[in-house]
Amino acid sequence: MILKEILNRRSIRKYKPDPIPQEYIIDIIKAGQFAPTAHNNRAVEFVVIKDQEMKERIFAIVGQDFVKEAQVLIIPAIDGEKTNCPVQDLSAASENMFLQATALGLGTVWKALKAEFDEEAKIKEMLGIPERYRVINIIPVGFPVENPGPYSDKDFSLEKIHEEKW
Amino acid sequence: MILKEILNRRSIRKYKPDPIPQEYIIDIIKAGQFAPTAHNNRAVEFVVIKDQEMKERIFAIVGQDFVKEAQVLIIPAIDGEKTNCPVQDLSAASENMFLQATALGLGTVWKALKAEFDEEAKIKEMLGIPERYRVINIIPVGFPVENPGPYSDKDFSLEKIHEEKW
Repeated sequence: MILKEILNRRSIRKYKPDPIPQEYIIDIIKAGQFAPTAHNNRAVEFVVIKDQEMKERIFAIVGQDFVKEAQVLIIPAIDGEKTNCPVQDLSAASENMFLQATALGLGTVWKALKAEFDEEAKIKEMLGIPERYRVINIIPVGFPVENPGPYSDKDFSLEKIHEEKW
Repeated sequence: MILKEILNRRSIRKYKPDPIPQEYIIDIIKAGQFAPTAHNNRAVEFVVIKDQEMKERIFAIVGQDFVKEAQVLIIPAIDGEKTNCPVQDLSAASENMFLQATALGLGTVWKALKAEFDEEAKIKEMLGIPERYRVINIIPVGFPVENPGPYSDKDFSLEKIHEEKW
């Protein structure tokens, strides 16, 4: 029996204009803080953006309408001096956040920052995040308009499993 | 209300010798396959190791007693030509696997492969994983001996949240 939230977590890019209760935002960030980190550094931090002008400024850097349409943007960041695995730490935290958002009936999507356009540096500068931090993605949060439905065994491939050796 | 499995997922390094039902292994890998991937590449594959001699050979490369003591080792891998974010994809899949294992009453830990000892290349060569694939960790699975208890608000820092700006 697969966890319901794992089945129901889908990439959602269209959100209702309904506001998100602050306790939901806190729960999503808690879930992110409870993710595993390298050597248990627990150093992931979070920028929470609700101001429309800030969302528009981020949209100007990374594009995608959902960035300005989501009620809230959450941007996880980690001090590169406190971890030797910043991308792993931020990714595991992001996945916990997606699942917690799903549990709360909210939609999210992984908006990756593009290296070829130097988006990480631009976002860090705009938000005042110190140079030594890493930022890899933006997590928009909103009540979903679309509902692609849960994953099922149709989406599972036994052929991707290798027994003992490749 | 934080997802029970997010609260209960802890790093477990001591396992009982009890065998793990095959359907549990499949469920853990399903959960890994249902994680988000860059541009929905869904290309994560999995090596499942149960043979004791294979575990000992992996232990010889990466160390850590739990590698030979776990009933099962699962090693996620992704074709570097099918994704532009291999570390993110493998990390999100790993976190889903940890949570699904927790839901099944199993213990796991993120055993990172060390770049300074070239462990990724050694593991790939040993298992016959093609050069272009990325491997970042080993996931041992077993019924837990230890029980560190769930996360709670003691483990949560409001100070790690930045409103609108850093």
